[in-house]
Amino acid sequence: MKRVAVIGVGLTKFGELWETSFSQLFVEAGAMAINDAGIDGKDVEAIYVGNMSGGRFVDQEHISCLIADHAGLTPIPATRVEAACASGGLAIRQGVMSILSGFHDIVVVGGVEKMTDVVTEKTTQTLATASDSEWEAFMGMTFPGLYALIARRHMHEYGTTREQLAMVAVKNHENAIHNPYAQFHSKITVEDVLRSPLVADPLRLLDCSPITDGAACVVLASEEKAREFVDNPVYITGSGQASSTIALHDRKKITVTDATVNAAKEAYARAKREPRDIQVAEVHDAFTIGEILAIEGLGFVEIGKGGKATEEGETAIGGRIPVNTSGGLKAKGHPVGATGVAQVVEIVLQLRGEAGKRQVDADVGLTHNVGGSGGTAVVHILEK
Amino acid sequence: MKRVAVIGVGLTKFGELWETSFSQLFVEAGAMAINDAGIDGKDVEAIYVGNMSGGRFVDQEHISCLIADHAGLTPIPATRVEAACASGGLAIRQGVMSILSGFHDIVVVGGVEKMTDVVTEKTTQTLATASDSEWEAFMGMTFPGLYALIARRHMHEYGTTREQLAMVAVKNHENAIHNPYAQFHSKITVEDVLRSPLVADPLRLLDCSPITDGAACVVLASEEKAREFVDNPVYITGSGQASSTIALHDRKKITVTDATVNAAKEAYARAKREPRDIQVAEVHDAFTIGEILAIEGLGFVEIGKGGKATEEGETAIGGRIPVNTSGGLKAKGHPVGATGVAQVVEIVLQLRGEAGKRQVDADVGLTHNVGGSGGTAVVHILEK
Repeated sequence: MKRVAVIGVGLTKFGELWETSFSQLFVEAGAMAINDAGIDGKDVEAIYVGNMSGGRFVDQEHISCLIADHAGLTPIPATRVEAACASGGLAIRQGVMSILSGFHDIVVVGGVEKMTDVVTEKTTQTLATASDSEWEAFMGMTFPGLYALIARRHMHEYGTTREQLAMVAVKNHENAIHNPYAQFHSKITVEDVLRSPLVADPLRLLDCSPITDGAACVVLASEEKAREFVDNPVYITGSGQASSTIALHDRKKITVTDATVNAAKEAYARAKREPRDIQVAEVHDAFTIGEILAIEGLGFVEIGKGGKATEEGETAIGGRIPVNTSGGLKAKGHPVGATGVAQVVEIVLQLRGEAGKRQVDADVGLTHNVGGSGGTAVVHILEK
Repeated sequence: MKRVAVIGVGLTKFGELWETSFSQLFVEAGAMAINDAGIDGKDVEAIYVGNMSGGRFVDQEHISCLIADHAGLTPIPATRVEAACASGGLAIRQGVMSILSGFHDIVVVGGVEKMTDVVTEKTTQTLATASDSEWEAFMGMTFPGLYALIARRHMHEYGTTREQLAMVAVKNHENAIHNPYAQFHSKITVEDVLRSPLVADPLRLLDCSPITDGAACVVLASEEKAREFVDNPVYITGSGQASSTIALHDRKKITVTDATVNAAKEAYARAKREPRDIQVAEVHDAFTIGEILAIEGLGFVEIGKGGKATEEGETAIGGRIPVNTSGGLKAKGHPVGATGVAQVVEIVLQLRGEAGKRQVDADVGLTHNVGGSGGTAVVHILEK
């Protein structure tokens, strides 16, 4: 595919942001991205918004319009896309398509979620609408429950250990300490994870990403237009998206995320890259087992070897393929609709050499965003 | 813009469909569109879904994945887009972009809404999430209320009469009698409208579109690919989308829908057409005043003359510019996420000469889909 440039990035602090409204979050991240790109608001031709459930979290659908309005950017087109926790990744992809189609030259793509304005029970119920509601959520299934089934099966099939799962969380918390936008800045140990409250056996509290408010934005531009504004563009060279069976019980094999495998295949093909070319990656660790599934599905390690690779430090900063240098969903936080865009922000900072104390040496990076228990996956490849 | 072909169309019956599930509705319309195009399921490369609020109406987000799964079309990408009642129009536009970007050659674009599975009070509250929730819905404002304010002001400024509003409903009910997919097949009179229960002064029950379940699908293809399958493609030659202030009180003038004017401007420019070239149109008559705003904003009549043009029969079948030959949202029904796609289905049937007793003579048609009280508008131009 023809490449599209990322010329600006912006993030809000991730966390429990009681004092900030839904649209303010987006506007804050968007303004930061626009300033970073050195463009003016009037240069923006369209907005894409990734958001999972404004309708249930803040009683607001039609949020793309609300955002364009509150950002003072009307009358430009503003479009929300949604595929649960993969909404942000989808928004990036639609932004890329809108440029490659010739419709636009400069677009703002953002993701946002305000999750703490409702009681925890409603948050859990709303997240469960990303599953097959009639077959899973209505029966009482929750997302920790779904991922717990996958984790248990992965342990059974491949000998993945409880401690290896914990090591994902330990690594990501370690990385987040150096990310000023992360929700958590607390070092944890394997023992801390194993002693944290049980959520859905074998997953414990510290295996799970938190409930988070936050927004992330990027400015995308056609290659020609990018050169007018910045001398350090990062290019999106590959994009892949795939769907799979939404309900876990209908999947052929729950320990391999088909959607990840297929989305990665498309992204690698479009970028003319292979797994071994990737030098840094942000993957979807909503639960610790999620990161193990991701690095296996993306081809960084063999199927079944994700736990061992984590234990051996291959995915740590300084390892063979650093994963979730931002702290990941686990420690940076997981405002669901924002996550896929925040992943792109982190890879852009890494490729630009602006990642501070968590900086790695990389020219090629990858983002991997999952919706539900693996029903949707979106993969992007970014290069200097 | 380069044109994109519509090679297949499908619809479910619109109405209170208690016996049919959300995903079944989409699959039914999708299968019909695929058969109409003469393609096979395996030819479909991506799915776009317009849906306003699966999360609140049927407790299901992540519906694009659910639909791909239940349609047996995994692992292809499946993407939901949303802008309230304009979701279907947005889905069409994203489908067009996905083809023009070079990502895909054949995509299914559908819209679906299942609105009758919840009690009426929740339906009203959910529709109100398309407004500026904090400033309008939270204060008790409903959609009939918002459009009533616009209607009253239009009557004050331009002398539009209560009877002229009613004539929109009378015309659209007349048209729907010949549409087998329409929710209502009942002829009504101006007196019926004026004697129907008051909903929000001056709007009465028969000024309002109904609560509807339903789905609509089209198959889009690149021009090259289209020729392999059909000899009667209809082309999308123009696409426009715009946003405006979401809350009514912040709008400079509530009797002109800026978003409609701006979206139309873009669509006309891309298609190299003018209002006078349009020979048939499906416009967003969620309330009778909506059709008057639409024909004015789209440039079919002068601002303020929409009521008079309706009274004089200009928008009737056989008139100068037939509007809502399908019965419109008022009488065909308004499953909100499906509406924008259903409008394209009607125009395709008209341009193909397959509209039965409601057939008009037209080579160029237009669709006009609105989100909220005018915060979003999407316009498409279609030609033989």
